[in-house]
Amino acid sequence: MSISVVIMAAGQGTRMKSKTPKVLHKICGRQMLYYAIKEAKKLSNDVQVVLYHESEMIKEAMQKEFEDVGFFIQDHLKYPGTAGAVMAALPKYDKVIVLNGDMPLVSADSIEELLDYEADAVMCAIPLKNPSGYGRVVTSGDEVLRIVEEKDATPLEKKIGLVNAGVYAFKGDFLAEALRNIDSNNAQKEYYLTDTIGYGVKHGKKVKWVEVTEEEFKGVNSKADLAHAEEIMLDKIRTKWMKEGVTMRLPQTIYIDDAVEFVGECEVESHCVIKGNSRIERSTVKAGSVIEDAVMIDSDCGPMARLRPKTVISGTHIGNFVECKNARLDGVKAGHLTYLGDCTAGSGTNIGAGTITCNYDGVKKYETVIGKNVFIGSDTQLVAPVTLEDNTMIAAGTTVTKDVESGSLALSRTPQKNITGFFDRFFGKK
Amino acid sequence: MSISVVIMAAGQGTRMKSKTPKVLHKICGRQMLYYAIKEAKKLSNDVQVVLYHESEMIKEAMQKEFEDVGFFIQDHLKYPGTAGAVMAALPKYDKVIVLNGDMPLVSADSIEELLDYEADAVMCAIPLKNPSGYGRVVTSGDEVLRIVEEKDATPLEKKIGLVNAGVYAFKGDFLAEALRNIDSNNAQKEYYLTDTIGYGVKHGKKVKWVEVTEEEFKGVNSKADLAHAEEIMLDKIRTKWMKEGVTMRLPQTIYIDDAVEFVGECEVESHCVIKGNSRIERSTVKAGSVIEDAVMIDSDCGPMARLRPKTVISGTHIGNFVECKNARLDGVKAGHLTYLGDCTAGSGTNIGAGTITCNYDGVKKYETVIGKNVFIGSDTQLVAPVTLEDNTMIAAGTTVTKDVESGSLALSRTPQKNITGFFDRFFGKK
Amino acid sequence: MSISVVIMAAGQGTRMKSKTPKVLHKICGRQMLYYAIKEAKKLSNDVQVVLYHESEMIKEAMQKEFEDVGFFIQDHLKYPGTAGAVMAALPKYDKVIVLNGDMPLVSADSIEELLDYEADAVMCAIPLKNPSGYGRVVTSGDEVLRIVEEKDATPLEKKIGLVNAGVYAFKGDFLAEALRNIDSNNAQKEYYLTDTIGYGVKHGKKVKWVEVTEEEFKGVNSKADLAHAEEIMLDKIRTKWMKEGVTMRLPQTIYIDDAVEFVGECEVESHCVIKGNSRIERSTVKAGSVIEDAVMIDSDCGPMARLRPKTVISGTHIGNFVECKNARLDGVKAGHLTYLGDCTAGSGTNIGAGTITCNYDGVKKYETVIGKNVFIGSDTQLVAPVTLEDNTMIAAGTTVTKDVESGSLALSRTPQKNITGFFDRFFGKK
Repeated sequence: MSISVVIMAAGQGTRMKSKTPKVLHKICGRQMLYYAIKEAKKLSNDVQVVLYHESEMIKEAMQKEFEDVGFFIQDHLKYPGTAGAVMAALPKYDKVIVLNGDMPLVSADSIEELLDYEADAVMCAIPLKNPSGYGRVVTSGDEVLRIVEEKDATPLEKKIGLVNAGVYAFKGDFLAEALRNIDSNNAQKEYYLTDTIGYGVKHGKKVKWVEVTEEEFKGVNSKADLAHAEEIMLDKIRTKWMKEGVTMRLPQTIYIDDAVEFVGECEVESHCVIKGNSRIERSTVKAGSVIEDAVMIDSDCGPMARLRPKTVISGTHIGNFVECKNARLDGVKAGHLTYLGDCTAGSGTNIGAGTITCNYDGVKKYETVIGKNVFIGSDTQLVAPVTLEDNTMIAAGTTVTKDVESGSLALSRTPQKNITGFFDRFFGKK
Repeated sequence: MSISVVIMAAGQGTRMKSKTPKVLHKICGRQMLYYAIKEAKKLSNDVQVVLYHESEMIKEAMQKEFEDVGFFIQDHLKYPGTAGAVMAALPKYDKVIVLNGDMPLVSADSIEELLDYEADAVMCAIPLKNPSGYGRVVTSGDEVLRIVEEKDATPLEKKIGLVNAGVYAFKGDFLAEALRNIDSNNAQKEYYLTDTIGYGVKHGKKVKWVEVTEEEFKGVNSKADLAHAEEIMLDKIRTKWMKEGVTMRLPQTIYIDDAVEFVGECEVESHCVIKGNSRIERSTVKAGSVIEDAVMIDSDCGPMARLRPKTVISGTHIGNFVECKNARLDGVKAGHLTYLGDCTAGSGTNIGAGTITCNYDGVKKYETVIGKNVFIGSDTQLVAPVTLEDNTMIAAGTTVTKDVESGSLALSRTPQKNITGFFDRFFGKK
Repeated sequence: MSISVVIMAAGQGTRMKSKTPKVLHKICGRQMLYYAIKEAKKLSNDVQVVLYHESEMIKEAMQKEFEDVGFFIQDHLKYPGTAGAVMAALPKYDKVIVLNGDMPLVSADSIEELLDYEADAVMCAIPLKNPSGYGRVVTSGDEVLRIVEEKDATPLEKKIGLVNAGVYAFKGDFLAEALRNIDSNNAQKEYYLTDTIGYGVKHGKKVKWVEVTEEEFKGVNSKADLAHAEEIMLDKIRTKWMKEGVTMRLPQTIYIDDAVEFVGECEVESHCVIKGNSRIERSTVKAGSVIEDAVMIDSDCGPMARLRPKTVISGTHIGNFVECKNARLDGVKAGHLTYLGDCTAGSGTNIGAGTITCNYDGVKKYETVIGKNVFIGSDTQLVAPVTLEDNTMIAAGTTVTKDVESGSLALSRTPQKNITGFFDRFFGKK
């Protein structure tokens, strides 16, 4: 793998209208730049990322995800523009791929095609139906003849639908030579990487092109682009898991993060959101459920359930309007309107509607331990820290503040009084 | 702006299969006719709406939205049909635009193009891939040569894909003359506005046409059309806000009313519904939340939260399965399974899971006042009217029926009893 | 109707990666094979299904749905392949239609077109934009000249986009003759039904073709295909009901089973799931609600409500985070965070937020009977079996364990105590 990859991630991305740097916006749970680096590392052990705006924040974010990535800072004052970014890198190898940090859908497979050519430079070009406004790539066979700005194009050239995708493979020597020789005598006063292609053509170098798709090589420059790119990635993720045997109802309404994993035959109904490092094994996620960094094994949840981080459920049924957070449930039923936070529960346990683990006292969070075969009546509050041993019962409406030993029933109930005649007195005789 | 606009809204719309008059069906929270009038008023200070079916209901609905709109009633018995509708109007100016009340997507910009032409009549025509069944518009350059019914069309004319969109600009004199001269000698026995075009062509008037898109000029005649038009409008609304910096996850699953406003950097996750005069400022709306006429400032809600009218939250976290109605919350956390209706709460206040404001006693609604730094334990009922002063605590499971003074803990708790041996007696020795 | 229909349902469907046999996977609430049989029975009183893998399970499932369907088992060892499947059938009539159990979208109307031809065999062919990999159907007018495998096709034949859909009409005599004469001398060592066409052409029989669409005739071979077919069917279902006057918001996010019925003017908001034998009459289903085998009459539910089987509500309002199961409610309001299971309630009854019917005691389920004009305060538990007679009131937070006679107020409340100075002691003087 004697290939260097330079990823340009120096731009500000003002059209995102965001305090977050462009390449840190997330797609399917990962920051955009993550995808570019991940694909680059499939091809190269010399991945170099060129930063400028918010460089520290971006570097820190990526160092959490990857080792062995080089970070360089563009000399933005002296060398603005895309070529200026590449000048900041120090590729080790003679083959240099240039990628963009805001193209999260470009795959290593597609980049690899660039390596098939013996050329000084290979550029990616996108055929567009409506190329108006873009510079056109004039070609002959697989050779680039020139790149011409819209305003300089002849009528015939204007009919060309091929535009520059902004991704390149260079011979290192040629790249260095070209970067030394281009200038910033243009409207933006920037050094354009595209000018290296012009330089190559002018000096009789071998400059080739490969066709790539707009869908894959579209840069993300706005929140609309972000949503669009995310939908394409979601489509890939959903298709991958359906191929693995996951049944999906209305898949285009299902949101699944890149890191989510399915094992065995699963079903995901419509309108579900599954995020983070969730793992779903032989389980059913019913409509409208939201799962985040949680594990389901031989279980079902929903509709309209929520599993939050550190939840691990196994052989468990979670019903509607139930929230689990840091709950480890094994063989449990919690069917309705319940909050299970910071707790464990064992097999055969039935948690009635309206049960709430009171895990927070305003200062700290505490654990609730629920044993096996515990029957918790409805509308029970479990004031943590508290333990319900195996084979215990809690009467409906109880506030449990002290432990319940095995075999016991706990209750805190005021006897019901019926006050006759109250209805008419209150509402007035009808 | 010496232009009159006549909007035809007299039709019954039987294919809608509804008791509601067609033009009052809603798209993105507004009645269809609203959009036609709103666009018309951008161009004209003489907007005239012609009604017949349910005229009073429609007039009343529109008068709530607009001032200075004229309403006229079609003489449906004597002058049925689209031309009959226009006869009822009294345009003040010599330039008359005719629009349809069931075309909610037509923009003032598109209509303005009609005004560029010096002609007695300008009609909009839609190019259709499959025009079969429609009358065809036969043209030469920008002139209309004739409009021919499918059955009368020559084989060559049948190949024409141009059909009448039903939107026109007339010179007032010509329109009056044409309306006087057309008749209802046709299968439907109606006066057709399209016959004014035929009249103009026949009498050597200047009759021009402009091309418009089916997407924009499609009339809504059925619930399927309504849904389709709404999806197009939603797409515009979502794109507008994404351009303004709103991040959306699976935007095509997000429903946003026309009146909704975003301020600053916001995120809306998938499956959200945001309606009415809601304003979302620097806030995050998590998956599956429903917001209606509510204001969020520097806050987050959801997933699966609901903010109902007159709710204003600021610096506040609203979690899953929480409903707010007429709640003004400033710096509050209400994370789970809670109903906050007709209440206020101040900063530093934590509202436990399962808290319910009992705002209704079967006769009237009452207010709950919650101060700052109040810690409300889980499963608490606040029986309004009631006040929890600053720095108070409510024990889990309490029914609060009287005010709590600052610094106090309120509780209404029956001590927990554990009854040993009950489990086996109840379930039978296992 | 002297037509026999043979439905091939013997295949294993390994690409589904499922323990469930392929043809039993569900689309809009019904097993795929159901649709093929249902359409077949519109055309024929001699419907024969050929099974092999999991034949007993499939037969049993279909016998629950249909009477008078013949089931045959393919002799898979001796006669593998699609022709082998047809050999197992015993068609009564001389006209034999062959369908596939994994094509749930093929309609009787489309099949009927095959019957218009006087021919020994009529095959369905699909025009594909990219037919590469498929055998091509070489035709002249409506006659089939040959079917050629990709690898044997001439350059000209490769340009043909017509491929075999796998659905046929045969003359019985010809089918029998052809089946006797084809062999399994091919790579898969299987008897291919397509070879009967080759046989017919070779022996000068009349072999015709009709064009069908890929959308309708696409077989379901993977979970992605299943989702795709389901989306097409959902689209049909939604369009049908919109035509009948049902208003839908974001229809492409709405899931509706085939068996669901709407009556009168209804509205279904975005993200709803309506399943099973639900019937919605003059009602509104608000965003994100899930309804299963339930009946709504003149009612509204949601957003985020759930109606489970055996629920029948009439003139009733069900609000957010409310679950009904086997609940019969007539003129009731249950607005928030409530579980109503195994209960009835009468007109004028108001069920406060957080009300829970405790219908299960760990052993059995019990009924709750709620009369008319009952006012149930918030956070009430109704421990079944229990009856609240007409004109009764339940105080907020009450655990109702015994019946409440008409006119009474029931309560089980511990008086509220306010303990002054507790806040500072607990949190430490601030």
